[in-house]
Amino acid sequence: MELLKQRILKEGKVIGQDILKVDSFLNHQIDIDLCNEMGREFKELFQDQNISKIVTIEASGIGIACITAQYFNVPVVFAKKTESRNLDQDTYESEVFSFTKSKSYKIRISKRYLQSEDRILIVDDFLANGKAIIGLKDLIDQAQATLVGVGIVIEKGFQDGGQILRDMGINIKSLAIIQSMKEGKIKIL
Amino acid sequence: MELLKQRILKEGKVIGQDILKVDSFLNHQIDIDLCNEMGREFKELFQDQNISKIVTIEASGIGIACITAQYFNVPVVFAKKTESRNLDQDTYESEVFSFTKSKSYKIRISKRYLQSEDRILIVDDFLANGKAIIGLKDLIDQAQATLVGVGIVIEKGFQDGGQILRDMGINIKSLAIIQSMKEGKIKIL
Repeated sequence: MELLKQRILKEGKVIGQDILKVDSFLNHQIDIDLCNEMGREFKELFQDQNISKIVTIEASGIGIACITAQYFNVPVVFAKKTESRNLDQDTYESEVFSFTKSKSYKIRISKRYLQSEDRILIVDDFLANGKAIIGLKDLIDQAQATLVGVGIVIEKGFQDGGQILRDMGINIKSLAIIQSMKEGKIKIL
Repeated sequence: MELLKQRILKEGKVIGQDILKVDSFLNHQIDIDLCNEMGREFKELFQDQNISKIVTIEASGIGIACITAQYFNVPVVFAKKTESRNLDQDTYESEVFSFTKSKSYKIRISKRYLQSEDRILIVDDFLANGKAIIGLKDLIDQAQATLVGVGIVIEKGFQDGGQILRDMGINIKSLAIIQSMKEGKIKIL
Protein backbone atom coordinates (compact mmCIF):
# COMPACT_ATOMS: atom_id res chain seq x y z
CA MET A 1 0.00 0.00 0.00
CA GLU A 2 1.88 2.99 -1.35
CA LEU A 3 0.47 5.64 1.02
CA LEU A 4 1.46 3.57 4.04
CA LYS A 5 4.95 2.83 2.68
CA GLN A 6 5.57 6.54 2.17
CA ARG A 7 4.50 7.27 5.76
CA ILE A 8 6.77 4.54 7.13
CA LEU A 9 9.73 5.85 5.14
CA LYS A 10 8.98 9.44 6.16
CA GLU A 11 8.12 9.01 9.84
CA GLY A 12 9.30 5.56 10.92
CA LYS A 13 12.24 5.44 13.30
CA VAL A 14 14.46 2.44 13.82
CA ILE A 15 15.54 1.73 17.38
CA GLY A 16 18.28 -0.82 17.90
CA GLN A 17 18.11 -3.88 15.67
CA ASP A 18 14.44 -4.64 15.48
CA ILE A 19 12.14 -1.90 16.81
CA LEU A 20 10.30 0.19 14.24
CA LYS A 21 8.62 3.18 15.84
CA VAL A 22 5.59 4.41 13.91
CA ASP A 23 3.85 6.05 16.80
CA SER A 24 3.09 9.25 14.91
CA PHE A 25 0.37 7.51 12.89
CA LEU A 26 -0.20 3.93 14.06
CA ASN A 27 0.33 2.96 17.66
CA HIS A 28 0.28 5.99 19.91
CA GLN A 29 -1.10 8.77 17.77
CA ILE A 30 -3.47 7.28 15.19
CA ASP A 31 -4.06 8.88 11.78
CA ILE A 32 -7.70 8.03 11.20
CA ASP A 33 -7.69 8.92 7.49
CA LEU A 34 -4.78 6.57 6.91
CA CYS A 35 -6.60 3.91 8.98
CA ASN A 36 -9.58 4.27 6.68
CA GLU A 37 -7.38 3.72 3.64
CA MET A 38 -6.00 0.60 5.34
CA GLY A 39 -9.51 -0.58 6.18
CA ARG A 40 -10.57 -0.18 2.55
CA GLU A 41 -7.50 -2.12 1.44
CA PHE A 42 -8.23 -4.98 3.86
CA LYS A 43 -11.80 -5.05 2.55
CA GLU A 44 -10.52 -5.40 -1.00
CA LEU A 45 -8.07 -8.14 -0.02
CA PHE A 46 -10.59 -10.20 1.95
CA GLN A 47 -13.93 -9.24 0.41
CA ASP A 48 -14.75 -12.73 -0.89
CA GLN A 49 -14.21 -14.40 2.47
CA ASN A 50 -17.66 -13.88 3.95
CA ILE A 51 -16.19 -12.60 7.21
CA SER A 52 -18.45 -12.51 10.28
CA LYS A 53 -16.09 -11.07 12.88
CA ILE A 54 -12.78 -9.24 13.21
CA VAL A 55 -10.50 -10.37 16.02
CA THR A 56 -7.53 -8.43 17.35
CA ILE A 57 -5.50 -8.09 20.53
CA GLU A 58 -5.29 -5.15 22.90
CA ALA A 59 -4.15 -2.48 22.77
CA SER A 60 -2.73 -1.08 19.54
CA GLY A 61 -4.66 -3.42 17.23
CA ILE A 62 -8.03 -2.10 18.40
CA GLY A 63 -8.12 1.15 16.44
CA ILE A 64 -7.31 -0.31 13.04
CA ALA A 65 -9.61 -3.29 13.74
CA CYS A 66 -12.57 -1.00 14.54
CA ILE A 67 -12.05 1.20 11.48
CA THR A 68 -11.64 -1.89 9.27
CA ALA A 69 -14.79 -3.50 10.71
CA GLN A 70 -16.87 -0.68 9.22
CA TYR A 71 -16.00 -1.90 5.73
CA PHE A 72 -17.06 -5.47 6.53
CA ASN A 73 -20.04 -4.44 8.63
CA VAL A 74 -19.11 -6.89 11.40
CA PRO A 75 -18.29 -6.60 15.11
CA VAL A 76 -14.78 -6.56 16.57
CA VAL A 77 -13.63 -8.79 19.41
CA PHE A 78 -10.33 -7.96 21.08
CA ALA A 79 -8.41 -10.52 23.10
CA LYS A 80 -7.54 -9.28 26.58
CA LYS A 81 -4.04 -9.48 27.96
CA THR A 82 -4.84 -8.69 31.56
CA GLU A 83 -6.96 -10.29 34.22
CA SER A 84 -10.08 -8.25 34.72
CA ARG A 85 -13.11 -8.43 36.96
CA ASN A 86 -15.09 -7.45 33.88
CA LEU A 87 -14.12 -10.56 31.97
CA ASP A 88 -16.17 -13.73 32.01
CA GLN A 89 -14.73 -16.68 33.86
CA ASP A 90 -15.57 -18.83 30.88
CA THR A 91 -12.88 -17.93 28.36
CA TYR A 92 -10.70 -19.41 25.67
CA GLU A 93 -7.13 -18.88 26.81
CA SER A 94 -3.72 -19.11 25.22
CA GLU A 95 -0.18 -18.15 26.08
CA VAL A 96 1.98 -15.82 24.01
CA PHE A 97 5.71 -15.38 24.43
CA SER A 98 6.88 -11.80 24.02
CA PHE A 99 10.46 -11.48 22.81
CA THR A 100 10.36 -7.74 23.52
CA LYS A 101 9.53 -8.32 27.16
CA SER A 102 11.22 -11.75 27.45
CA LYS A 103 8.19 -13.27 29.13
CA SER A 104 4.92 -15.00 28.43
CA TYR A 105 1.52 -13.48 28.86
CA LYS A 106 -1.96 -14.92 28.63
CA ILE A 107 -4.57 -13.82 26.13
CA ARG A 108 -8.27 -14.49 26.58
CA ILE A 109 -11.53 -14.20 24.73
CA SER A 110 -14.87 -14.90 26.36
CA LYS A 111 -16.50 -18.03 24.94
CA ARG A 112 -19.60 -15.95 24.24
CA TYR A 113 -17.90 -14.02 21.48
CA LEU A 114 -16.41 -16.79 19.34
CA GLN A 115 -18.84 -19.23 17.73
CA SER A 116 -18.11 -22.30 15.64
CA GLU A 117 -19.91 -20.72 12.67
CA ASP A 118 -17.73 -17.58 12.79
CA ARG A 119 -15.49 -16.81 9.83
CA ILE A 120 -12.78 -14.67 11.31
CA LEU A 121 -10.37 -12.08 10.01
CA ILE A 122 -7.55 -11.23 12.41
CA VAL A 123 -6.32 -7.64 12.08
CA ASP A 124 -3.18 -6.43 13.83
CA ASP A 125 -0.71 -3.59 13.55
CA PHE A 126 2.54 -5.59 13.48
CA LEU A 127 3.78 -9.03 12.53
CA ALA A 128 7.28 -9.96 13.70
CA ASN A 129 7.77 -13.45 15.12
CA GLY A 130 4.09 -14.33 14.77
CA LYS A 131 3.54 -15.47 18.35
CA ALA A 132 0.54 -13.18 18.97
CA ILE A 133 -1.18 -14.37 15.78
CA ILE A 134 -0.52 -18.02 16.69
CA GLY A 135 -2.06 -17.33 20.11
CA LEU A 136 -5.14 -15.74 18.53
CA LYS A 137 -5.42 -18.66 16.10
CA ASP A 138 -5.32 -21.01 19.07
CA LEU A 139 -8.33 -19.21 20.63
CA ILE A 140 -10.18 -19.39 17.30
CA ASP A 141 -9.35 -23.10 16.95
CA GLN A 142 -10.60 -23.78 20.48
CA ALA A 143 -13.92 -22.23 19.46
CA GLN A 144 -13.91 -24.38 16.30
CA ALA A 145 -14.39 -21.18 14.34
CA THR A 146 -12.70 -20.61 10.97
CA LEU A 147 -9.72 -18.31 10.56
CA VAL A 148 -10.11 -17.09 7.00
CA GLY A 149 -7.36 -14.51 6.93
CA VAL A 150 -4.92 -12.26 8.72
CA GLY A 151 -4.56 -8.60 7.79
CA ILE A 152 -1.35 -7.00 9.02
CA VAL A 153 -0.41 -3.35 8.71
CA ILE A 154 3.37 -3.76 8.94
CA GLU A 155 5.19 -7.07 8.59
CA LYS A 156 8.83 -7.28 9.57
CA GLY A 157 9.87 -9.44 6.65
CA PHE A 158 13.32 -10.03 8.15
CA GLN A 159 11.78 -11.88 11.11
CA ASP A 160 10.35 -15.34 10.69
CA GLY A 161 6.70 -14.88 11.72
CA GLY A 162 5.36 -14.35 8.20
CA GLN A 163 7.07 -17.47 6.89
CA ILE A 164 5.95 -19.62 9.82
CA LEU A 165 2.31 -18.51 9.49
CA ARG A 166 2.26 -18.91 5.69
CA ASP A 167 3.77 -22.41 6.11
CA MET A 168 0.83 -23.16 8.41
CA GLY A 169 -1.44 -22.36 5.47
CA ILE A 170 -2.74 -19.09 6.94
CA ASN A 171 -3.84 -16.49 4.39
CA ILE A 172 -1.80 -13.46 5.47
CA LYS A 173 -1.82 -10.13 3.71
CA SER A 174 0.48 -7.36 4.91
CA LEU A 175 0.03 -3.78 3.72
CA ALA A 176 3.76 -3.12 4.02
CA ILE A 177 6.61 -5.61 4.40
CA ILE A 178 9.86 -4.29 5.82
CA GLN A 179 12.78 -5.98 4.11
CA SER A 180 15.50 -4.65 6.37
CA MET A 181 16.26 -1.92 8.90
CA LYS A 182 20.06 -2.12 8.91
CA GLU A 183 21.90 0.87 10.33
CA GLY A 184 18.64 2.69 10.84
CA LYS A 185 17.76 2.59 7.15
CA ILE A 186 14.31 1.20 6.38
CA LYS A 187 13.91 -0.84 3.22
CA ILE A 188 10.39 -1.84 2.18
CA LEU A 189 9.64 -4.66 -0.27
CA MET B 1 -28.87 8.35 23.97
CA GLU B 2 -31.86 6.05 23.69
CA LEU B 3 -30.29 3.30 21.57
CA LEU B 4 -27.42 2.93 24.04
CA LYS B 5 -29.74 2.91 27.06
CA GLN B 6 -31.78 0.11 25.52
CA ARG B 7 -28.64 -1.94 24.91
CA ILE B 8 -27.44 -1.43 28.47
CA LEU B 9 -30.81 -2.48 29.89
CA LYS B 10 -30.97 -5.48 27.55
CA GLU B 11 -27.40 -6.77 27.72
CA GLY B 12 -25.74 -5.14 30.73
CA LYS B 13 -24.92 -7.40 33.66
CA VAL B 14 -24.31 -6.21 37.18
CA ILE B 15 -21.53 -7.95 39.09
CA GLY B 16 -21.31 -7.28 42.82
CA GLN B 17 -21.96 -3.69 43.88
CA ASP B 18 -20.29 -1.65 41.21
CA ILE B 19 -19.25 -3.59 38.11
CA LEU B 20 -21.39 -3.17 35.01
CA LYS B 21 -20.49 -5.67 32.33
CA VAL B 22 -21.27 -4.45 28.81
CA ASP B 23 -18.73 -6.59 27.04
CA SER B 24 -21.18 -7.75 24.36
CA PHE B 25 -21.07 -4.34 22.66
CA LEU B 26 -18.53 -2.03 24.27
CA ASN B 27 -15.41 -3.37 25.88
CA HIS B 28 -14.65 -6.86 24.66
CA GLN B 29 -16.89 -7.33 21.66
CA ILE B 30 -17.48 -3.96 20.00
CA ASP B 31 -20.65 -3.17 18.06
CA ILE B 32 -19.31 -0.85 15.37
CA ASP B 33 -22.72 0.41 14.24
CA LEU B 34 -23.55 1.44 17.80
CA CYS B 35 -20.08 3.05 18.07
CA ASN B 36 -20.88 5.09 14.98
CA GLU B 37 -24.11 6.29 16.55
CA MET B 38 -22.14 7.28 19.65
CA GLY B 39 -19.53 9.05 17.52
CA ARG B 40 -22.25 11.04 15.76
CA GLU B 41 -23.74 11.97 19.13
CA PHE B 42 -20.36 13.16 20.47
CA LYS B 43 -19.94 15.23 17.30
CA GLU B 44 -23.28 16.89 17.91
CA LEU B 45 -22.48 17.55 21.57
CA PHE B 46 -19.03 19.03 20.91
CA GLN B 47 -19.27 20.34 17.37
CA ASP B 48 -18.72 24.00 18.30
CA GLN B 49 -15.54 23.30 20.23
CA ASN B 50 -13.05 23.38 17.36
CA ILE B 51 -11.43 20.16 18.50
CA SER B 52 -7.98 19.30 17.14
CA LYS B 53 -7.35 15.96 18.80
CA ILE B 54 -9.13 13.16 20.64
CA VAL B 55 -7.33 11.69 23.64
CA THR B 56 -8.19 8.40 25.31
CA ILE B 57 -6.51 5.72 27.40
CA GLU B 58 -5.72 2.15 26.45
CA ALA B 59 -7.30 -0.27 25.97
CA SER B 60 -11.08 -0.14 25.84
CA GLY B 61 -11.34 3.59 25.04
CA ILE B 62 -9.44 3.20 21.77
CA GLY B 63 -12.24 1.78 19.62
CA ILE B 64 -14.86 4.39 20.44
CA ALA B 65 -12.21 7.16 20.23
CA CYS B 66 -11.16 6.09 16.72
CA ILE B 67 -14.72 5.82 15.43
CA THR B 68 -15.59 9.20 16.99
CA ALA B 69 -12.48 10.84 15.50
CA GLN B 70 -13.90 10.24 12.01
CA TYR B 71 -16.71 12.70 12.74
CA PHE B 72 -14.26 15.39 13.89
CA ASN B 73 -11.66 14.60 11.24
CA VAL B 74 -8.85 14.67 13.82
CA PRO B 75 -6.22 12.18 15.03
CA VAL B 76 -6.49 10.07 18.18
CA VAL B 77 -3.79 9.85 20.83
CA PHE B 78 -4.08 7.13 23.41
CA ALA B 79 -2.26 7.29 26.74
CA LYS B 80 -0.19 4.19 27.42
CA LYS B 81 -0.43 2.32 30.68
CA THR B 82 2.60 0.10 30.26
CA GLU B 83 6.29 0.69 29.83
CA SER B 84 7.23 0.04 26.26
CA ARG B 85 10.42 0.10 24.24
CA ASN B 86 8.32 1.74 21.53
CA LEU B 87 7.48 4.77 23.64
CA ASP B 88 9.57 7.94 23.61
CA GLN B 89 11.60 8.67 26.70
CA ASP B 90 10.28 12.20 26.60
CA THR B 91 6.73 11.83 27.89
CA TYR B 92 4.13 13.57 30.01
CA GLU B 93 3.40 11.24 32.88
CA SER B 94 0.74 11.00 35.55
CA GLU B 95 -0.39 8.49 38.13
CA VAL B 96 -3.86 7.01 38.32
CA PHE B 97 -5.24 5.05 41.24
CA SER B 98 -7.40 2.10 40.25
CA PHE B 99 -10.01 1.16 42.82
CA THR B 100 -10.77 -2.01 40.89
CA LYS B 101 -7.18 -3.20 41.17
CA SER B 102 -6.37 -1.38 44.43
CA LYS B 103 -3.16 0.03 43.03
CA SER B 104 -1.74 2.95 41.12
CA TYR B 105 -0.52 2.82 37.58
CA LYS B 106 1.28 5.34 35.41
CA ILE B 107 -0.11 6.79 32.21
CA ARG B 108 2.05 8.43 29.59
CA ILE B 109 1.77 10.39 26.38
CA SER B 110 4.78 11.31 24.28
CA LYS B 111 5.44 15.06 24.32
CA ARG B 112 5.38 14.99 20.53
CA TYR B 113 1.66 14.34 20.43
CA LEU B 114 0.29 17.03 22.73
CA GLN B 115 0.87 20.65 21.71
CA SER B 116 -0.04 23.83 23.56
CA GLU B 117 -2.34 24.86 20.69
CA ASP B 118 -4.30 21.58 20.86
CA ARG B 119 -7.99 21.74 21.76
CA ILE B 120 -8.69 18.30 23.16
CA LEU B 121 -11.73 16.12 23.55
CA ILE B 122 -11.24 13.16 25.89
CA VAL B 123 -13.34 10.14 24.95
CA ASP B 124 -13.64 7.13 27.24
CA ASP B 125 -15.97 4.19 27.74
CA PHE B 126 -16.64 4.54 31.49
CA LEU B 127 -16.67 7.23 34.16
CA ALA B 128 -16.82 6.02 37.76
CA ASN B 129 -14.53 7.75 40.27
CA GLY B 130 -12.98 9.98 37.62
CA LYS B 131 -9.35 9.15 38.41
CA ALA B 132 -8.44 8.19 34.83
CA ILE B 133 -9.92 11.41 33.45
CA ILE B 134 -8.09 13.48 36.08
CA GLY B 135 -4.87 11.71 35.06
CA LEU B 136 -5.49 12.49 31.38
CA LYS B 137 -6.30 16.11 32.25
CA ASP B 138 -2.99 16.30 34.11
CA LEU B 139 -1.12 15.21 30.94
CA ILE B 140 -3.05 17.79 28.89
CA ASP B 141 -2.31 20.51 31.48
CA GLN B 142 1.40 19.63 31.45
CA ALA B 143 1.35 20.21 27.69
CA GLN B 144 -0.49 23.52 28.26
CA ALA B 145 -3.10 22.29 25.81
CA THR B 146 -6.81 23.00 26.31
CA LEU B 147 -9.24 20.35 27.49
CA VAL B 148 -12.49 21.46 25.88
CA GLY B 149 -14.65 18.50 26.78
CA VAL B 150 -15.01 14.93 27.94
CA GLY B 151 -17.30 12.49 26.13
CA ILE B 152 -18.20 9.43 28.18
CA VAL B 153 -20.20 6.44 26.97
CA ILE B 154 -21.44 5.23 30.38
CA GLU B 155 -21.26 7.28 33.57
CA LYS B 156 -21.89 5.58 36.88
CA GLY B 157 -23.96 8.38 38.35
CA PHE B 158 -23.92 6.76 41.79
CA GLN B 159 -20.14 7.18 42.04
CA ASP B 160 -18.62 10.58 42.60
CA GLY B 161 -16.40 11.04 39.53
CA GLY B 162 -18.95 12.97 37.49
CA GLN B 163 -19.61 15.42 40.32
CA ILE B 164 -15.90 15.93 41.04
CA LEU B 165 -15.09 16.61 37.39
CA ARG B 166 -18.07 18.95 36.88
CA ASP B 167 -17.04 20.83 40.05
CA MET B 168 -13.62 21.27 38.42
CA GLY B 169 -15.42 23.05 35.58
CA ILE B 170 -14.88 20.28 33.04
CA ASN B 171 -17.49 20.03 30.30
CA ILE B 172 -18.57 16.40 30.57
CA LYS B 173 -21.26 14.79 28.47
CA SER B 174 -22.26 11.19 29.15
CA LEU B 175 -24.36 9.24 26.67
CA ALA B 176 -25.92 7.19 29.46
CA ILE B 177 -25.88 7.84 33.21
CA ILE B 178 -26.53 4.86 35.47
CA GLN B 179 -28.54 5.98 38.47
CA SER B 180 -28.30 2.76 40.44
CA MET B 181 -27.52 -0.94 40.10
CA LYS B 182 -29.03 -2.20 43.35
CA GLU B 183 -29.72 -5.93 43.55
CA GLY B 184 -28.60 -6.37 39.99
CA LYS B 185 -31.26 -4.01 38.63
CA ILE B 186 -29.95 -1.28 36.36
CA LYS B 187 -31.67 2.11 36.52
CA ILE B 188 -30.69 4.71 33.96
CA LEU B 189 -31.36 8.45 34.38
